[in-house]
Amino acid sequence: MSVPKIVILGAGYGGLMTAKGLQKELNYNEAEVTLVNQNSYHYITTKLHEPAAGTAHHDHARIAIEDVINTKKIKFIRDRVTSINLQQKEVQLEKGDEPLKYDYLVIGLGSAPETFGIKGLLENALFIRNIDSVRMIREHIEYMFARYPSEKKEELITIVVGGAGFTGIEYVGELVDRMPELCREYDIPLEKVRIVNIEAAPTVLPGFDKELVDYAVKYLESKGVEFLISTPIEECTQDGVIVKGGKEIKASTVVWTGGVRGNKLVEDSGIETMRGRVKVDEFLRAPGYDNVFVLGDSSLVFNEDGERPYPPTAQIATQQGQCLGKNLAALIRGGEMKPFKYEPKGTVASLGRKEAIGVVGNKKMAGGMAAFMKKVIDLRWLFLLGGVSLVLRKGKL
Amino acid sequence: MSVPKIVILGAGYGGLMTAKGLQKELNYNEAEVTLVNQNSYHYITTKLHEPAAGTAHHDHARIAIEDVINTKKIKFIRDRVTSINLQQKEVQLEKGDEPLKYDYLVIGLGSAPETFGIKGLLENALFIRNIDSVRMIREHIEYMFARYPSEKKEELITIVVGGAGFTGIEYVGELVDRMPELCREYDIPLEKVRIVNIEAAPTVLPGFDKELVDYAVKYLESKGVEFLISTPIEECTQDGVIVKGGKEIKASTVVWTGGVRGNKLVEDSGIETMRGRVKVDEFLRAPGYDNVFVLGDSSLVFNEDGERPYPPTAQIATQQGQCLGKNLAALIRGGEMKPFKYEPKGTVASLGRKEAIGVVGNKKMAGGMAAFMKKVIDLRWLFLLGGVSLVLRKGKL
Repeated sequence: MSVPKIVILGAGYGGLMTAKGLQKELNYNEAEVTLVNQNSYHYITTKLHEPAAGTAHHDHARIAIEDVINTKKIKFIRDRVTSINLQQKEVQLEKGDEPLKYDYLVIGLGSAPETFGIKGLLENALFIRNIDSVRMIREHIEYMFARYPSEKKEELITIVVGGAGFTGIEYVGELVDRMPELCREYDIPLEKVRIVNIEAAPTVLPGFDKELVDYAVKYLESKGVEFLISTPIEECTQDGVIVKGGKEIKASTVVWTGGVRGNKLVEDSGIETMRGRVKVDEFLRAPGYDNVFVLGDSSLVFNEDGERPYPPTAQIATQQGQCLGKNLAALIRGGEMKPFKYEPKGTVASLGRKEAIGVVGNKKMAGGMAAFMKKVIDLRWLFLLGGVSLVLRKGKL
Repeated sequence: MSVPKIVILGAGYGGLMTAKGLQKELNYNEAEVTLVNQNSYHYITTKLHEPAAGTAHHDHARIAIEDVINTKKIKFIRDRVTSINLQQKEVQLEKGDEPLKYDYLVIGLGSAPETFGIKGLLENALFIRNIDSVRMIREHIEYMFARYPSEKKEELITIVVGGAGFTGIEYVGELVDRMPELCREYDIPLEKVRIVNIEAAPTVLPGFDKELVDYAVKYLESKGVEFLISTPIEECTQDGVIVKGGKEIKASTVVWTGGVRGNKLVEDSGIETMRGRVKVDEFLRAPGYDNVFVLGDSSLVFNEDGERPYPPTAQIATQQGQCLGKNLAALIRGGEMKPFKYEPKGTVASLGRKEAIGVVGNKKMAGGMAAFMKKVIDLRWLFLLGGVSLVLRKGKL
C-alpha cells in the first residue's frame, strides 16, 4: 500500500513553512513529501531591496534549502515547473522526463510584476523579484555610474523608482544609504545624483498611518529624494519614463515596484484567478479542487468583512504555511482541518539601515526603534526556518 | 625681472618625473613651474589591467598628485588642455579664462587608442586607458555576468580581447584570475565563460622571446583562454567582432588593446607627427621648436640604428622625464643639456597575480620569479614618485 504523495511547488515563505510543518508533524512512513523549487535556495523577499541597492550582499538574502529542510524526510527537487495538470493530478517539470504525480498539491509559486498595461515597462524597467534580478539591478546601477565620469550624461546617475508602496519606499531608503559610497567609488559629486520616486496614488505608502508617512517622506526628502505623487507613469522607454501630461524624466535606471500579480502557471492550470491569484476557501483550497492548496502571492485571502483582500506579504504567506502544514498532516490521518485566520502582527517599513516606520501591535513607531523592530522581524523568520543556529549564522542586528 | 615659466602638460610618467626633477634641482626663485593635469591624480598605466579585470581596486592604480609633488614649488592646475598655441607660447585650458603663458613647454599628454581604421571599434569596444575607463570595463563585465542567470545568452559571458601585445596578454592574465570569483558571485559555471584573445600578427607578444611566449600561451590556454592568431578583426559591432574571412564571434564585451597613437592635441598644435606622435631630437625637442619638449606616448624615440621606434612604455617615459628635469634646470641656468639615451632595463609581462614572463638584464625568467620581479618594478615606480613612504603606503608584494 502506497502512502499519499504531497507535492509542494515553490520554496517561498508559504511552501517552505508547509514543508517544515510536515517534516515536524509526520513520521517517515505517513506521506511522501516532495518540495520543488527552481533554485537551490530560498530567498528572503523582504530583504531583496538591500542587495538591489547594493547595501547588502545577495547572499544575506538567501538560504540553501538543504540547510533548513531535512532531506531524509522531504524530497527536494531543484527544477522549474512548466505546467500543472489538475485532471491527471501531475506536474510537469523542465528537466524531469516523468511528470510528478500527487495526491495533494500545494501551490506557492509566488508572483510576477504587475505592469498595469504601462507601455514599455516589461521591456525597459528592472524588477525587484529574486536573487538574479536584484544583483542585476545592483550591477546595472554601478555600470551606469561607472560610465558617468567619461560620458557625463545626467540620466546615467538618475534613478527612477516606480511605485511608492512598501517595496518602493524601502528601496528608496536603501538607495539613499548607498549613494555616498557609490559616488566616492566613481568620483561623482553626490548632489548630482537624482532619485525620483513616482506614484500614481495620491499618497506615498497608501494605507499607512498618515503621521508615519509624513515622517518617511520628510526623512527621504531631506536626503534628496524627489517624490512625484498622483503621477501615473504612462510609458517606460530606453531613455526613462513619460508621466501623465507628457513630461519625460530621463533616467538610465527605472526600477518598478508598483505591484505584483500571481504566477501565470496558476492561471494556465485552469484554476479561476483574479490577476493570476486564486481566491482560496477557508482551508486555502482552490475553488473546485479539494486536494489543491494555494498560498502566498499566488493566493487571495479576503479580510473579515470579505470586502478587500489582504496585501500579499511574507507575513501572511508564513502564517498560511504554518496552518497548511498542520492541516495536511490532519488530513492524511483522517482528522479535521482548521480554517485559516490571518493575524496581522504589524508592519514595519525600513528607510535604509538606521531609519524605519511601522506599526507593531497597536503601537506606532518611527526612527531607530522601528529600525530595530524591523531587524527583530527579520530574525524571527530565520528562527522559524532554522532555529537559533540559523539566526546566529545569518542574522545581524 | 621675471623668472622663466615652465609649463608641463600631463602628469603621466614623463610629466611627473620632469616635475619631480625640477622640484629637486631648482630653487624657489629660479623658475615658475606649472603642472597641468585633467585629474587630481596620476594613474599607474602599467597597473590598469588589474582594475579593468576587477582583480585590484582602481585606487591601487592612482596616486594623488599633491601627495607626490611639493605644491609650494610646483603650481598644480587641475584642468583639461583644449589647445596649444606654439606661436603665442600659450596653452588654452577648459576652465581657465586666461591662456597659460610659457617660456618652456613640456608635452606629456599621453596616448589615445589606435584603431587602425577597424569599423565600429571606437563606438563598440572598451579601452584600457585611464581610471574612468577601467572601472567602467570592470562594471561592464560585472553587469553582463549579472544578466546571464536570467537571460542565458552565451555572449554575455564571452569576453573578446583584441590584441595580444603586452597589455592584451597582461589583461587576459588578470581575467583568468578573476573569473572563478565572478562566476561564484553570479552562480555561473566557470566552464561556460569564454575568453578569446584575437591578434592580427602571426604571434602572441610580437618581439618577445619565443620560449617565453610559448610559456605564456601554454599557461593561459591551460586556464581556458582561446587564442586566434594571424586573425585581423575586420569589424566590431554591438554583438561582438567579425574577423577576417567573415566569421563572427558574439561577445557582449570587447576590450581593445591593439595599440595606441599620440594625443590629437599635439597634432592639432601644428607640430609634425607620425600617428599623433612627435619624432623628437636628442634633447626631446619637437622639430622646429627649441622650447617645446615632448615625452612619453606623445613622443617617438628611435633606436640606435635609427630604424625602429622604441615601443611606448612607462619605462622610457620615466627615463625621459628624469633626463628632461635635469636638462631644463641646466637650460635656465645657461648650462648644457645632455642628450637622452634610453637604457632598457628589461620587460616583464604579468599573467595574473602569480605568473609572469620577462627579460631583466640578460636574464629570461618565467613563473613565480618573474611575477616577483614585476612587483619589484611596480614598487620602483612608487619609490621614484614618493620615496619609501609611498612604497609603504601603496605598495604590495
